[in-house]
Amino acid sequence: MYDHLKGFRDFYPDEMGARREVIDQLEATARQYGFREIGTPALERTQMYVDKSGEEIVEELYAFEDKGGRDVAMTPELTPTVARMVVAKQQELSKPIKWVSTRPFWRYEQVQQGRFREFYQTNVDIFGSSEPEADAEILAFAADALTSLGLTGEEFEFRVSHRDILGGLLEAFDTDVQTKEAIRAVDKSEKISEAEYHDLLVEAGLTYDQAAEFDDLLAVDAENLDELVEFAGTDRVENAVTNLQNVLDAAADFGAGEYCTLSLETARGLDYYTGVVFECFDSTGEVSRSVFGGGRYDDLIESFGGQPTPAVGVAPGLAPLSLLLQRADVWPDESFTTDYYVLQIGDTRDVAAEITRTLRSRGHVVETDVAGRSFGAQMNYADGVNAETVVIVGEQDLEDDAVTVKDMDSGDQEQVPLAEFPGDHDRPTLADFE
Amino acid sequence: MYDHLKGFRDFYPDEMGARREVIDQLEATARQYGFREIGTPALERTQMYVDKSGEEIVEELYAFEDKGGRDVAMTPELTPTVARMVVAKQQELSKPIKWVSTRPFWRYEQVQQGRFREFYQTNVDIFGSSEPEADAEILAFAADALTSLGLTGEEFEFRVSHRDILGGLLEAFDTDVQTKEAIRAVDKSEKISEAEYHDLLVEAGLTYDQAAEFDDLLAVDAENLDELVEFAGTDRVENAVTNLQNVLDAAADFGAGEYCTLSLETARGLDYYTGVVFECFDSTGEVSRSVFGGGRYDDLIESFGGQPTPAVGVAPGLAPLSLLLQRADVWPDESFTTDYYVLQIGDTRDVAAEITRTLRSRGHVVETDVAGRSFGAQMNYADGVNAETVVIVGEQDLEDDAVTVKDMDSGDQEQVPLAEFPGDHDRPTLADFE
Repeated sequence: MYDHLKGFRDFYPDEMGARREVIDQLEATARQYGFREIGTPALERTQMYVDKSGEEIVEELYAFEDKGGRDVAMTPELTPTVARMVVAKQQELSKPIKWVSTRPFWRYEQVQQGRFREFYQTNVDIFGSSEPEADAEILAFAADALTSLGLTGEEFEFRVSHRDILGGLLEAFDTDVQTKEAIRAVDKSEKISEAEYHDLLVEAGLTYDQAAEFDDLLAVDAENLDELVEFAGTDRVENAVTNLQNVLDAAADFGAGEYCTLSLETARGLDYYTGVVFECFDSTGEVSRSVFGGGRYDDLIESFGGQPTPAVGVAPGLAPLSLLLQRADVWPDESFTTDYYVLQIGDTRDVAAEITRTLRSRGHVVETDVAGRSFGAQMNYADGVNAETVVIVGEQDLEDDAVTVKDMDSGDQEQVPLAEFPGDHDRPTLADFE
Repeated sequence: MYDHLKGFRDFYPDEMGARREVIDQLEATARQYGFREIGTPALERTQMYVDKSGEEIVEELYAFEDKGGRDVAMTPELTPTVARMVVAKQQELSKPIKWVSTRPFWRYEQVQQGRFREFYQTNVDIFGSSEPEADAEILAFAADALTSLGLTGEEFEFRVSHRDILGGLLEAFDTDVQTKEAIRAVDKSEKISEAEYHDLLVEAGLTYDQAAEFDDLLAVDAENLDELVEFAGTDRVENAVTNLQNVLDAAADFGAGEYCTLSLETARGLDYYTGVVFECFDSTGEVSRSVFGGGRYDDLIESFGGQPTPAVGVAPGLAPLSLLLQRADVWPDESFTTDYYVLQIGDTRDVAAEITRTLRSRGHVVETDVAGRSFGAQMNYADGVNAETVVIVGEQDLEDDAVTVKDMDSGDQEQVPLAEFPGDHDRPTLADFE
């Protein structure tokens, strides 16, 4: 007997039905915002990831040499691929470009709760606008998607930060500080002790006193962002603070205000972010890790050889999202239903098939026996697939030129003339014949 | 600038929209038949494919060793995976098991028209029924899916054959004939000369006279299948002929009769088929290769370590299917439409955002400016996304406590009091205010 690989999953229909409902809802919300679906390959050249993230990324990739001698990798994320696609058709695509797609990605990493080696994400991105309204639209999409899944503002929050505030403050301490390393330290700060955190900041070039002060500054609340501008005294921090405030204002207009909390300590691990970044957290803290995140990455397209093109996006992952939805008790129930089961007794296939075809042609979900099973076995099956109505086509019914229509909820049934079923009824049920 | 890999494709929204429409239609038809969606991994152990198809299959696979030292392969087809999944939960799953899924697969092979290294298939399978009605349901699903995509019986045909008739005839000639090799020769027969075909049959163990007679026998028409029974004089051929006739009768009841043609020369390349097999062809011959195929594979589950479980399925591939749909001129047009574009002039974001939110909450597709663009640029964008109605929120409109509603088809527009838009109209258009 074969088994699936560690970190990979088989989804049987019940679980898949719930997952499909969640994916459909994420995509329907994106569609309402005017995002358009794209399709992307599962393999890319490994070099693309190395250029973007450094040689060490290869350790996390399903990377190999293909039969043609190319170094290729199974895509660990979508952003480099969409950046490549934007660059390839930069002239033809009208801006802003708004794209959505849902698909699996692969990373060779430790398997843990809500984290697998094969994982699904819905990526939603806007290219070609540096305006705060674009960041706000991404936040509003994310909030709308979550509330349409049944979550309320009690259940989740978006912790919003700004890369350029962090970078500007660090620069104000010391222009030689290694910003990337320091921001990675901020990203890790919640998972390590304060001492370890400060050690990392010192390694990045701050003194211990500066590290403590930096830590204090990041704890500022939304009303006192001006203190950061005063401290730094640079245009960079002033502009970044203004941009963050503009994004929060626009997010409020677009209906996402109540879900946003200022949290400069939220840094997002990825190096390519440049402006507003945010992470979605479970408000109860029961799901302890970030559920998903997003932000602005204005330099990536240019670094891929394109014209400067601002970009902002978010990528909810299905596995961590399912933890939040399950914790909040709004993970979808099994949703599979069957409108009709057409039951055959004896040699009645031709009539049963005719009824089945007619009901299907009216758009209904209809099953009939394909396994030569007994009355009882067919009834069990009909029950198992949540059939609403069973149409019994028995030899005796047919002698009366009739079928028996059974409501599976009440168990009531009635013989109905064959000429009247389904007749002109678009979606006939027992009630139509009582 | 990076490029995608050879044989892999980027789908931009226009093309993706058409593909999505086709996939949705295939899946909607499957759902109407009671098939339930499953989700499956992109990687499996290479050994599974080697066990099923022999060591030589590895040459066609994207196979490699993962970081944990496992020999893995990107899945080249779904059947082994679903067989594995059926075996893993054989006791729990109620029969018949009816599954559907659409996803990419990967094979390292020559790229040609309609054939890529990454390709999408919709797999539809029934496990647990050996009855002819199961084969017929697969044929009826395939026919329904194609006609719901706009094809007619003039456009395509299902060439139906039976593995056990081929095997039984070969056995009747000579019990030592190598059946697999001979059936592979039949599968190739349309692509090679008659002499080459006969050479291959002789290599498989027939004499040249037998090869010619075998060739003649396969040309029998549906009314004279009894000639094959007479020729062979074995229960095996008699049972196979009866089964084929029963499947064709059942297919006729289920509405697929008119699309089916007997064609014993159709053999399907894959070794694991055991009963009825069929391939869909373009009736005009313009698409020269088989569009897709399917059939019965009753032995696979057992060979995977499960209990004997009959199985039958079909797997339309999107690339060859798109060739047929395009040839028949029914490939979907770009389908993306936008219900509303809410246009901002001046500092009107709060009102525009409020209208946008209200319209979205009623289920509509609504875009508004996220890029600080001019009136003209916004109008161009609205036109580019096929907006049906543009709601102009100008500073002057707001001074009159109004917005301007513009029908993009006629170009007509009207100022409407803010209090009345969208008001109680579920889907307000200019006509509601004229």
